[in-house]
Amino acid sequence: MENKKFVIGIDFGSDSVRALVVDAATGEELATSVSFYRRWKQGDYCVPKENQYRQHPQDYIDSLTFVVTDALSRCSEEVRQNVVGLSFDTTASTPAIVDTTGTPLALLPEFAEDPDAMFVLWKDHTSIAEADEINALAHSWEVDYTKYSGGTYSCEWAWSKVLHILRRNEAIRQKAYSWVEHCDWISGLLVGNIRPETIARSRCVAGHKVMWNEEWGGLPSRAFAEKLDTKLADMRDTFSAETYTADHCVGGLTAEWAEILGLNEGVAVGVGAIDCHIGAVGAGISNNVQVKVMGTSTCDIIISDYESVGAKAVRGICGQVDGSVVPGKIGFEAGQSAFGDIYAWYKRLLGWSLRTLSDTPEAEDKILAALTAEAENLPLTENDLVAIDWHNGRRTPDADPLQKGSIYGLTLATTAPEIFKALVEATAFGSRAINERMLEEGVKIEGILAVGGISKKSRFVMQTMADVIGVPIKVVRSEQACALGAAMYAAVIAGIYPNIEAAQQAMSSGFDAEYTPNAERHAIYNTLYAKYKKLGTNGL
Amino acid sequence: MENKKFVIGIDFGSDSVRALVVDAATGEELATSVSFYRRWKQGDYCVPKENQYRQHPQDYIDSLTFVVTDALSRCSEEVRQNVVGLSFDTTASTPAIVDTTGTPLALLPEFAEDPDAMFVLWKDHTSIAEADEINALAHSWEVDYTKYSGGTYSCEWAWSKVLHILRRNEAIRQKAYSWVEHCDWISGLLVGNIRPETIARSRCVAGHKVMWNEEWGGLPSRAFAEKLDTKLADMRDTFSAETYTADHCVGGLTAEWAEILGLNEGVAVGVGAIDCHIGAVGAGISNNVQVKVMGTSTCDIIISDYESVGAKAVRGICGQVDGSVVPGKIGFEAGQSAFGDIYAWYKRLLGWSLRTLSDTPEAEDKILAALTAEAENLPLTENDLVAIDWHNGRRTPDADPLQKGSIYGLTLATTAPEIFKALVEATAFGSRAINERMLEEGVKIEGILAVGGISKKSRFVMQTMADVIGVPIKVVRSEQACALGAAMYAAVIAGIYPNIEAAQQAMSSGFDAEYTPNAERHAIYNTLYAKYKKLGTNGL
Repeated sequence: MENKKFVIGIDFGSDSVRALVVDAATGEELATSVSFYRRWKQGDYCVPKENQYRQHPQDYIDSLTFVVTDALSRCSEEVRQNVVGLSFDTTASTPAIVDTTGTPLALLPEFAEDPDAMFVLWKDHTSIAEADEINALAHSWEVDYTKYSGGTYSCEWAWSKVLHILRRNEAIRQKAYSWVEHCDWISGLLVGNIRPETIARSRCVAGHKVMWNEEWGGLPSRAFAEKLDTKLADMRDTFSAETYTADHCVGGLTAEWAEILGLNEGVAVGVGAIDCHIGAVGAGISNNVQVKVMGTSTCDIIISDYESVGAKAVRGICGQVDGSVVPGKIGFEAGQSAFGDIYAWYKRLLGWSLRTLSDTPEAEDKILAALTAEAENLPLTENDLVAIDWHNGRRTPDADPLQKGSIYGLTLATTAPEIFKALVEATAFGSRAINERMLEEGVKIEGILAVGGISKKSRFVMQTMADVIGVPIKVVRSEQACALGAAMYAAVIAGIYPNIEAAQQAMSSGFDAEYTPNAERHAIYNTLYAKYKKLGTNGL
Repeated sequence: MENKKFVIGIDFGSDSVRALVVDAATGEELATSVSFYRRWKQGDYCVPKENQYRQHPQDYIDSLTFVVTDALSRCSEEVRQNVVGLSFDTTASTPAIVDTTGTPLALLPEFAEDPDAMFVLWKDHTSIAEADEINALAHSWEVDYTKYSGGTYSCEWAWSKVLHILRRNEAIRQKAYSWVEHCDWISGLLVGNIRPETIARSRCVAGHKVMWNEEWGGLPSRAFAEKLDTKLADMRDTFSAETYTADHCVGGLTAEWAEILGLNEGVAVGVGAIDCHIGAVGAGISNNVQVKVMGTSTCDIIISDYESVGAKAVRGICGQVDGSVVPGKIGFEAGQSAFGDIYAWYKRLLGWSLRTLSDTPEAEDKILAALTAEAENLPLTENDLVAIDWHNGRRTPDADPLQKGSIYGLTLATTAPEIFKALVEATAFGSRAINERMLEEGVKIEGILAVGGISKKSRFVMQTMADVIGVPIKVVRSEQACALGAAMYAAVIAGIYPNIEAAQQAMSSGFDAEYTPNAERHAIYNTLYAKYKKLGTNGL
């Protein structure tokens, strides 16, 4: 025990935060704790009908404190004494407007209840108009700042969100000095450096969500920001041009936070990054390997040598950033805005008759299992139904949030399981469309690793995915790939490993299933996929 | 009573035959009787998986005998004595191959059990290949014989069916001399003249289903038939070039049939016609009025002055024939191959969860009422879902049996009633597409009358139809428009009225509902209909 070192990976999700205490030598998971954000869970500060989703910074502080102390309470004193590193991942872009000290405005008494003073969660869509404006400006600018964001700046990202709030909330505008992303604020807080000019900003978030790129020396120019709003330009000027990859140590835990968390003062704190990027690391990503985070939506992460892609921007992909996943590699992010959500939608659709006309509405929970059992046994032919999976808009390739889902090829004999099969295939076609775009643009994909709820729960979906894409898919054993990835980075910044590859080598969880494509089915899916592509371009 | 005269209308449907005894002066319905075809009901001679549907001629004879005697048994002796006319409608094209005497081969002992010796019901699709061959030949021929059939000869029609049987059944081929349509055979039988060369053939069936047209002097030429099959050419040569409209009296009831039916010898027997054409007469069709027969599918009948259309062939419509509905007017036939069937399909789809996961599968029967109640209260917007109603292929405009249904614009918030609303709207859009084609081609539609199950059962469907098309729709009171129309023609051929218009005037049932379009909704539907048209041309 005397030589053993431990690290803590902390994963801030959309609803809760999880801490994972890990043996830095083996990746063994010693203890874990999860805490839901209290105010968020009550629905505070959110207006779902307007897609307004805000999170109070105090929720993050309270939950973080709970999960670290709770997880450690289940470990021995020796473990606690030998925690040497702490790293984070969070959702993004989840920015908050801050004052000159770097404090999110909601932590000031006068703004404590103002949703515009809080973190604006990634899925908040209140700034669609501002995103349109930013896109129009960027596309007419001397350099298209969206080129490494797939050509489209999203309403889910910081520039849109901050601009929206500045324009609608005069009190906030008066007090605003800069903004900070969730993951940057958390690590800055723990080491006592949140000043806008000096806080360590994550390369991963800045590159993927805030149009930071070395090509233009950091953020878009002041002149660009001024065209949108002079206040925004002033805020932009508070940013250092530098950003940091997740193998960078921000500093040591302050005495105050060491006391709160029950850790030693000076424990190394790492630069944070976006959850699915860190999850990809935890899953075991390596060069030319794709990690699919498969849940209600999907996030696809691929890393590639700089040499094989060069400075070329891949068309229609969410983002590509040097070092966003693994230092020295280009990290690509893509994804589908609805995946498991589409199956849940169909469950609710078929559940309508149970809810409306039966005494057993709870049987709705059995629908997906029953559909799966029937769909697995359906024949596969080139004349099958084809569905399009854009029920929540299209994220990649070629973002268009206004696209919608559809189903083609219905006959009077079409059954409920046949439609389910088509919807599952549609989500797999959506995945394939992302991969084909990557391949067309010269990005190699030599293997696929899957994490997330769907990868564990549905053999049918996973086999369909393998058959459609035609590449074997391995399912990662760990159910906490994000927290594990953060723990790997914590081991690097604590100096246990020279780089993240070495940490992955030692700490990975391995795999607990592999889905191999069936060649015959893949050939049929090639035909159905061609129809999917054709129909997708022919819609409304 | 002494001056009262009575007529009997006989309506041979797909599953049963109905006799209606009517007061010729007023149209009052005195008695009715229905009989299902016994062999057909047992499933004899049919192979649904291969779309083979055959009906034994003895079924027609047995059922006809039952319904006439049964209906008369509920009338007084005076009524029976004063029946002066008998007319028919049947499905079409429902042909049987006959010998030199005109006897359907299945009535000969050696062919009594051979499905190829029986009537081939309209919906039999065993001759798709032969229809393709006929179309290819017609389109390359000096005159395109399909020009008054919308440019496409159907596998549901006699030339395709007879050619198919000749090729596959050598014994039948040896015995074959001619063929006869159901409605021609029935009236020929009752007056004792079924000889192929002299039997009175219905203008309505010959014109709509057998490529008969005055423009080319009758049926397609012998040379044309020879290109397909010399035997078929020989059979073609047995046809007289003449055809008859339904106001023509075939002759008087034979003594033998008078005895069987309990009527007087010599009662006038009329030329038969196709059910929906006769139904349109019973509904009260007049110049530039459309009658929609709305059930599992729809049939649309319009009549128009020869002067307003001339010899022009309306593109993509099932058929147009001078005198097929009303003598002296051009009769147009169009229709949708699935209408109520699409609602029934959706009911089965949503019923899946009740059947699979609840103890109350019978609640499926309440689905359409519950969906209707919710769908009626949904808002109507230009961004609503759009569905395409080709679940059973597209009949008109522009027949293509391979087209399929689809649903566009799905989101994660789409509900079961919203999809139902979209499906109802799709069936109305399908109706509008037919009417717009008619209008584009110069056929006027100044009013719409509706008959059939849907017109009585669903106020929601009827109001949607009125709002989509933008024309008021009146629902015909009689639930037996076909049999009533046949009775009207029976009154004409018995000499009670000088023409069918006079019979309609006296005998029509009137209307029991009228649906008036809502102008605001019609304007929104114009936008949704434009999407329907666009999506329909963009499909697979």
